[in-house]
Amino acid sequence: MTESKPIRRIAVIGTGVIGASWTALFLAKGLEVVATDPALSAEPALRKFVAGAWSALTRLGLSPGASQSNLKFTPDLGDALASADFVQENGPERVDFKQKLYGQIDELLPSDVIIASSSSGIPMSQIQPGARAHPERCVIGHPFNPPHLIPLVEIVGGAKTSEETNRRADEFYTSIGRRTVRIKKELPGHVANRLQAALAREVYYLVAEDVLNAADVDTALCWGPGLRWGIMGNMMLNHLGGGPGGIEHFFQQFAGPMAASWKALGSPALTPEVQKKLIDSVHTEVGSRTIAELEAERDEILLGLLELRSKRQEAVARHKVAAG
Amino acid sequence: MTESKPIRRIAVIGTGVIGASWTALFLAKGLEVVATDPALSAEPALRKFVAGAWSALTRLGLSPGASQSNLKFTPDLGDALASADFVQENGPERVDFKQKLYGQIDELLPSDVIIASSSSGIPMSQIQPGARAHPERCVIGHPFNPPHLIPLVEIVGGAKTSEETNRRADEFYTSIGRRTVRIKKELPGHVANRLQAALAREVYYLVAEDVLNAADVDTALCWGPGLRWGIMGNMMLNHLGGGPGGIEHFFQQFAGPMAASWKALGSPALTPEVQKKLIDSVHTEVGSRTIAELEAERDEILLGLLELRSKRQEAVARHKVAAG
Repeated sequence: MTESKPIRRIAVIGTGVIGASWTALFLAKGLEVVATDPALSAEPALRKFVAGAWSALTRLGLSPGASQSNLKFTPDLGDALASADFVQENGPERVDFKQKLYGQIDELLPSDVIIASSSSGIPMSQIQPGARAHPERCVIGHPFNPPHLIPLVEIVGGAKTSEETNRRADEFYTSIGRRTVRIKKELPGHVANRLQAALAREVYYLVAEDVLNAADVDTALCWGPGLRWGIMGNMMLNHLGGGPGGIEHFFQQFAGPMAASWKALGSPALTPEVQKKLIDSVHTEVGSRTIAELEAERDEILLGLLELRSKRQEAVARHKVAAG
Repeated sequence: MTESKPIRRIAVIGTGVIGASWTALFLAKGLEVVATDPALSAEPALRKFVAGAWSALTRLGLSPGASQSNLKFTPDLGDALASADFVQENGPERVDFKQKLYGQIDELLPSDVIIASSSSGIPMSQIQPGARAHPERCVIGHPFNPPHLIPLVEIVGGAKTSEETNRRADEFYTSIGRRTVRIKKELPGHVANRLQAALAREVYYLVAEDVLNAADVDTALCWGPGLRWGIMGNMMLNHLGGGPGGIEHFFQQFAGPMAASWKALGSPALTPEVQKKLIDSVHTEVGSRTIAELEAERDEILLGLLELRSKRQEAVARHKVAAG
């Protein structure tokens, strides 16, 4: 791989929910985007999404040069890739489709340009054989929806991905304010979706078994442990949960009870009956509130929380400089 | 049970970490507290805790009449119970101890006063036989640590608990700003601790299997799905995850993949070697930061998030009144 040039221009392949959100983020970070999608109404839908996301992105802080006018749209893949410094692919979740697409991209693109896939379901080792000349520049760069608001990006290489690609993808996402994690094994659901699935399994079990209803299990999460998971991760919270003795004391005290409690956790079967019970209980919880109202509530608090956390980090950084 | 009088005076039995935090909360809500604990240095430790918690409680909003001077301490259980309107018990987590304690309290206390236990580990059905005359007024009122900051209270009755007791406990905790859930079956860990255990199991598995380190799994949680769990619960987020089709569409799309993903989740064994790996990885994550610094960071953002959410709720309530 040649010396890498700065990443200024992104090709966004596929402009559905995830691709549109990536586009808005890249533009807000002062980058140029050339987006492509075969759908007929893709361009107006994309521009509408970006315009709608702009006020939230402005609140979170635009980078110098950020502008919605830095978005170009083309239905032609070759045009989208011309002079691209980085590719973010958000195509359909089908192995055959992606392999073929990666073959096309690989032929059209200089060998030092990274092709990152937003795929949540297909491991890169299954996609990259399509990129026959340069599979080493292909990597998973999986965001958490919606990418323009949620900072997490999971980076996972396939069997043929180079360490250089992993590192450069990490540097790029970090440079635009993303919180990256490097995942060393290809697993279904990467990491974040596995954490969600682990939690959801117990939530569904408790509602299915009539232990409590959807409204109450949501209260238990979002006014209980969930409050802390938006602030710190499980391992760090365990460290603080150990008191002055930290993580060592935590495990001394809780490893036994914790392992015992795992045996009591549930494994629900998502039968049509169970799904109906869960759905009915959610509707009781929702009442007359519309999805738009609930989304607005979620995003308003999410933006506030992100602002809180970035302010706190700036304060800590200033303190370190002052003390340093 | 006779007509219940207003709850103004709380007996707090046991003033360790949980009892002290409850005491601070009750005082901040304008209530009187008489606390008791057999430990020699219990009173100064309690008063120190309350004084330390007061600035956070002030920020969250003191109720009329709230004062640290409404705290009395006595080493004598009978004195603590005299004229108590509600008992919050935070004794050691041993069945024999609690049964005996409930026997004593039951004899000393008028029959219409609720005895609520903070127990996380012992079901009320095992404790309340100690209260031979009036087991029906005994109930679990389990907080999430620390109770003066985290709003969740889980209410679980035992086999002999009356519906009246469940209801009155719920009303009381709700009246002091707690977010209550009524749990209809006695299960190990109630609900919130089960949700924590379900998540921790997968977190430990991923670190144990070298999929990623503690710092990265914490990043994946607290900059990914965790951000939303401090805002809304799993079921409501599923509803929004379904797009315009809501929860029905969510299950149509994801029930299959979700159930399949459960099969791939891990079941780690917390052997000494695994514990050492987890502990070492946490220390790498923590670096030179002290537990006090990390606690301050956690609590600062937690207070901010609680303020955000209460402001949002006030705005929604005002909107409803204006529209109504």
